[in-house]
Amino acid sequence: MSTGKEMKSGQKLRVGLVGYGYWGPNLARNFSSNADCELVRIAEKSQERFEVAKQAHPSVDVVTDSSQITSASDIDAVVIATPVHTHFALALEALDNGKHVWVEKPITSSHEEALKLVQKADDTGLVVMVDHTFLFTGAVKKMKEIIDSGELGDLHYYDSVRVNLGLFQSDINVIWDLAPHDLSIMDYLIDKDPISVTANGSDHYGRNLIDVGYVTVNYENNLIAHFHVNWLSPVKIRRTLVGGSKSSLVWDDLRADSNIMIYDRGVEIETKEGMYDLLASYRMGDMRSPMIGVREALAEEVSYFVDCIRRNEQPFNDAAAGARVVKILEAANRSLEGHGVPITL
Amino acid sequence: MSTGKEMKSGQKLRVGLVGYGYWGPNLARNFSSNADCELVRIAEKSQERFEVAKQAHPSVDVVTDSSQITSASDIDAVVIATPVHTHFALALEALDNGKHVWVEKPITSSHEEALKLVQKADDTGLVVMVDHTFLFTGAVKKMKEIIDSGELGDLHYYDSVRVNLGLFQSDINVIWDLAPHDLSIMDYLIDKDPISVTANGSDHYGRNLIDVGYVTVNYENNLIAHFHVNWLSPVKIRRTLVGGSKSSLVWDDLRADSNIMIYDRGVEIETKEGMYDLLASYRMGDMRSPMIGVREALAEEVSYFVDCIRRNEQPFNDAAAGARVVKILEAANRSLEGHGVPITL
Amino acid sequence: MSTGKEMKSGQKLRVGLVGYGYWGPNLARNFSSNADCELVRIAEKSQERFEVAKQAHPSVDVVTDSSQITSASDIDAVVIATPVHTHFALALEALDNGKHVWVEKPITSSHEEALKLVQKADDTGLVVMVDHTFLFTGAVKKMKEIIDSGELGDLHYYDSVRVNLGLFQSDINVIWDLAPHDLSIMDYLIDKDPISVTANGSDHYGRNLIDVGYVTVNYENNLIAHFHVNWLSPVKIRRTLVGGSKSSLVWDDLRADSNIMIYDRGVEIETKEGMYDLLASYRMGDMRSPMIGVREALAEEVSYFVDCIRRNEQPFNDAAAGARVVKILEAANRSLEGHGVPITL
Amino acid sequence: MSTGKEMKSGQKLRVGLVGYGYWGPNLARNFSSNADCELVRIAEKSQERFEVAKQAHPSVDVVTDSSQITSASDIDAVVIATPVHTHFALALEALDNGKHVWVEKPITSSHEEALKLVQKADDTGLVVMVDHTFLFTGAVKKMKEIIDSGELGDLHYYDSVRVNLGLFQSDINVIWDLAPHDLSIMDYLIDKDPISVTANGSDHYGRNLIDVGYVTVNYENNLIAHFHVNWLSPVKIRRTLVGGSKSSLVWDDLRADSNIMIYDRGVEIETKEGMYDLLASYRMGDMRSPMIGVREALAEEVSYFVDCIRRNEQPFNDAAAGARVVKILEAANRSLEGHGVPITL
Repeated sequence: MSTGKEMKSGQKLRVGLVGYGYWGPNLARNFSSNADCELVRIAEKSQERFEVAKQAHPSVDVVTDSSQITSASDIDAVVIATPVHTHFALALEALDNGKHVWVEKPITSSHEEALKLVQKADDTGLVVMVDHTFLFTGAVKKMKEIIDSGELGDLHYYDSVRVNLGLFQSDINVIWDLAPHDLSIMDYLIDKDPISVTANGSDHYGRNLIDVGYVTVNYENNLIAHFHVNWLSPVKIRRTLVGGSKSSLVWDDLRADSNIMIYDRGVEIETKEGMYDLLASYRMGDMRSPMIGVREALAEEVSYFVDCIRRNEQPFNDAAAGARVVKILEAANRSLEGHGVPITL
Repeated sequence: MSTGKEMKSGQKLRVGLVGYGYWGPNLARNFSSNADCELVRIAEKSQERFEVAKQAHPSVDVVTDSSQITSASDIDAVVIATPVHTHFALALEALDNGKHVWVEKPITSSHEEALKLVQKADDTGLVVMVDHTFLFTGAVKKMKEIIDSGELGDLHYYDSVRVNLGLFQSDINVIWDLAPHDLSIMDYLIDKDPISVTANGSDHYGRNLIDVGYVTVNYENNLIAHFHVNWLSPVKIRRTLVGGSKSSLVWDDLRADSNIMIYDRGVEIETKEGMYDLLASYRMGDMRSPMIGVREALAEEVSYFVDCIRRNEQPFNDAAAGARVVKILEAANRSLEGHGVPITL
Repeated sequence: MSTGKEMKSGQKLRVGLVGYGYWGPNLARNFSSNADCELVRIAEKSQERFEVAKQAHPSVDVVTDSSQITSASDIDAVVIATPVHTHFALALEALDNGKHVWVEKPITSSHEEALKLVQKADDTGLVVMVDHTFLFTGAVKKMKEIIDSGELGDLHYYDSVRVNLGLFQSDINVIWDLAPHDLSIMDYLIDKDPISVTANGSDHYGRNLIDVGYVTVNYENNLIAHFHVNWLSPVKIRRTLVGGSKSSLVWDDLRADSNIMIYDRGVEIETKEGMYDLLASYRMGDMRSPMIGVREALAEEVSYFVDCIRRNEQPFNDAAAGARVVKILEAANRSLEGHGVPITL
Repeated sequence: MSTGKEMKSGQKLRVGLVGYGYWGPNLARNFSSNADCELVRIAEKSQERFEVAKQAHPSVDVVTDSSQITSASDIDAVVIATPVHTHFALALEALDNGKHVWVEKPITSSHEEALKLVQKADDTGLVVMVDHTFLFTGAVKKMKEIIDSGELGDLHYYDSVRVNLGLFQSDINVIWDLAPHDLSIMDYLIDKDPISVTANGSDHYGRNLIDVGYVTVNYENNLIAHFHVNWLSPVKIRRTLVGGSKSSLVWDDLRADSNIMIYDRGVEIETKEGMYDLLASYRMGDMRSPMIGVREALAEEVSYFVDCIRRNEQPFNDAAAGARVVKILEAANRSLEGHGVPITL
């Protein structure tokens, strides 16, 4: 569907950024340095961050009121990097004013809100993109390529650990803070609908927001996914294991080099005559580690955002992708409330 | 309670080993080389393993019938290293015949059976020891010392990963195979009663025995423990994180050296005036890694078994310790049947 | 000695940068963001790099002729980041025109030239600082503190490896390219005069500039230092071992965390009665890893440069420090010519 | 040349072991468990070690006088595991009495002695094998296969590090103790004659035997080999880099798994128009790590020793191989005496 909103080639995309907190500076830097964008305005309420923004971007208009971006006539696209509970209202306002939207993860605080954004994007033809940055890394693109090639065979399990000594978020628990990275990667790599979710966790600072969390996501055909997220770990670990019927891979995001390793190893079942039990043994094999490109993921994602707008297409990390992640997050919260009770999706 | 079964100093403990499969050779070697023991007899049903036992221990009597050990007059102690479902009957028979018992982990197939062995040990005054080998490693002893000293403060979480490309067991799932190691360590280190268990897992070879498993154990005061066990991992990982209110430790069992690291790092809560949210930030600090002794754990455990018999005392890894581990395993199985439903202990 | 060149507090240091190649952008960024400096002008001969400089620093004057910096009246300090063989002439010209000088490592192409700069700095009272960046890292400062405290005892050896798949330099060999980092660190930590140097190496691309190199530096009291530098290694290694009579340390510069480890381990000599040989055994002990600060080294160094100028003092990384490093480099080249023959300093 | 000494198939090789010190127990265990050998006798002078030998091998004759082995009629092969300076006389005596010889590394204390053993083996047709154990590891065999296949291209450098906190030897320096491992591997992999050697080192315990050593070995075509051996390192490192014109490999002997890594990475030379300098850039590429077999090297070597005797053939690790290693060791000592002066071979 065409909306008349597509950009003309040669014309720069005029971008407004709402929120200059933790992630905002990275967005500002990347939109500034993209040759097809012009960062026109930044809105930031906190006085302290307002000053930081002004100093870092002397040529950009810095304001306190976000409506000077969401409803401004000199803005084509709104980038939303505010606390999660504000995403929905800001995105809706921007879309109602005919702006394309880039929104930080998780897309909204609820699945219901996310679905409304999906509908709105559909109705308006405006681009809505959720910032699942990891999907633009060389490592995740390489894993997608490997899995799609069938090299791993049928997927058996997906196990992710993302732990470190982290800044606590004031409005969301550790699952909502860290797991969207891994859930969006899983959603991208597996490309199927999960059937149930369980979650466990614990909080230790009297805030009713867990700081250690575990989430299990079940798929058909006995594919199981599991996520360990933790703000209290003294060491930083970011490792994902993906096991398949033919071979398996390990992604260690903290290795500077050779961070994806594919092991030609597996289980072999043999039945011995007269034995009532199946016997399984394992087969060891070679490992290979493909070279991964190193272009900054966020720079690639910004380029892709501009391309989607120019070609008048929804991105693959669209509002629907954001909604799928939030659906799992919401189920995780319900499971937590039930002390780990399984939630059918 | 004295039973008249205590050994006289200077007299060797006459030991019979039932089962010469995967672990049996290690037991045979360690009981043989302990100066206070005499390995008198080995019972093994499989023709192939029978021959291996004879060749490795030419001076030891090798038989096929376990009753030649459990009820033999020249045997003081019976070491049971057979499949799990046979542990209970063999241990009971040995105890009924006045033998001390060493039994592999898990102690029995059910909590009910384990409690019967606890009762029987109590009634007879015979030593019943479950082989929780890791409790005799330098690393676990050092962790016990650190935790008991209060250096970590209040415990917040216990996270264990034990994965590799493993031999499938024919009668038990991966949780019953691998988790007893970690559950027995947790039981020893934490020394409290857990209040609930959830478990998730998946099987991929049509055997109805999961090969990838996750277990969560909840304690009072928001202490959460979690276990990842996996027979399908292309890489071997054996790492435990123990997080406390003051500091945290990491145990990496595969490092040859410096495998326990204590991090003086933690979270600090500050409230800013006029802020409605608690703010938390982290404090980075030094790490230290104590030197760990390297004597073979199994050799230490054999010595301790002899000491307990001589002093007519139950070991700390007694039938009750075995029963506590089986109680959690049993609850994990029930949770698995309910697709992760929480089980109150 | 006062020169009337000291800066007034509150006045910004007006800086000109000569050379915008590999390292120039880092210098430009750090001098720009230092509140006490103003980056006034950049000189760059290459048309391509000239354009890059203009784009990155739109408010800075970019010129092609270095004399517009070395003899300009609106410049207080000249930063020299050009090929090594041009350092001497540029530094001399700057000093003759009354400018303070910051020069990249190695300070000059020969020890003789370096000594002339030492003399000139002495004569003029102008600050001459050689950019031994690593001396401003948290890790090197921590090592200095540890060594000076006597914790290691007498130093026995200093072993450094700095290898990776590297960009070949067109005018210097791998020893002149990479070893200055480590020689300057050694010079700083050990603070003694070496007595002899040997070097070996090999070149593989017909350029008469070795790409794999080994340098040994001998000190009194059997202290030996050794450096492996290599542009052809498929893996990146940056590790230094410092062994002492009491304990030893390892610095692994590629670890994100805990990159200095101090081992309380050593050798113990015992003489057995009636034995003609000394017997040595080792003592294993704990390890500790101090937390290292993470402020960018170059930013600290720029601040220190400004401080030295303000206080009218020579830095500890002055021309004499640069000369000591070049003396070893020069000896290494002579040893290479003699196929490893030892050169007395 | 046939000697009438070849074994008949089915007949066991009657073995005598001289020396039951550090390595002797491993030899005794492996010769005992080889089905084609009978360990008949052990000679050991030290009272303490004599008792240890008796206890560990109750069915083996243990004596104090080595001539009861070297000249005994019931011995076919003599295994020599005594201090280095005794190797030559013992080996000669055994050969003169018609025994095959297995001798620990280094084969003798001098190149001249080694050449005499080469001659004697040639004259008698008896097998003389030097225990270069590493040549029988899966890793070294795999590296040989990779290098011989031409996958690495022309070899550029060979860099080896073997350091740990080690037991000092009472009669030899660290180069003679540790470097024979790596020199024998290099000799096997490179299969060319080196042209010169330099060595540096230092001793710190007043014994005139260096405890930290560096050896450089030069080959034709700019191939350079370098060895770092060290008894004073707080950490254990055993890593070899082999760089070639096409690709390079890393062998990390302390990794349990994936310990050989082949990197498809290299240097590419390009000349830019109008540039007077050659420009080199690097090409990053994939890594692969072949699965390595895990059979015990010493067991394989014992089997090979028996095979050589049966087939009446000299092994590839013959006296001549031992002599090539000692030639380099001897040159290293001469270079050390000259403070690193190059020694032409």
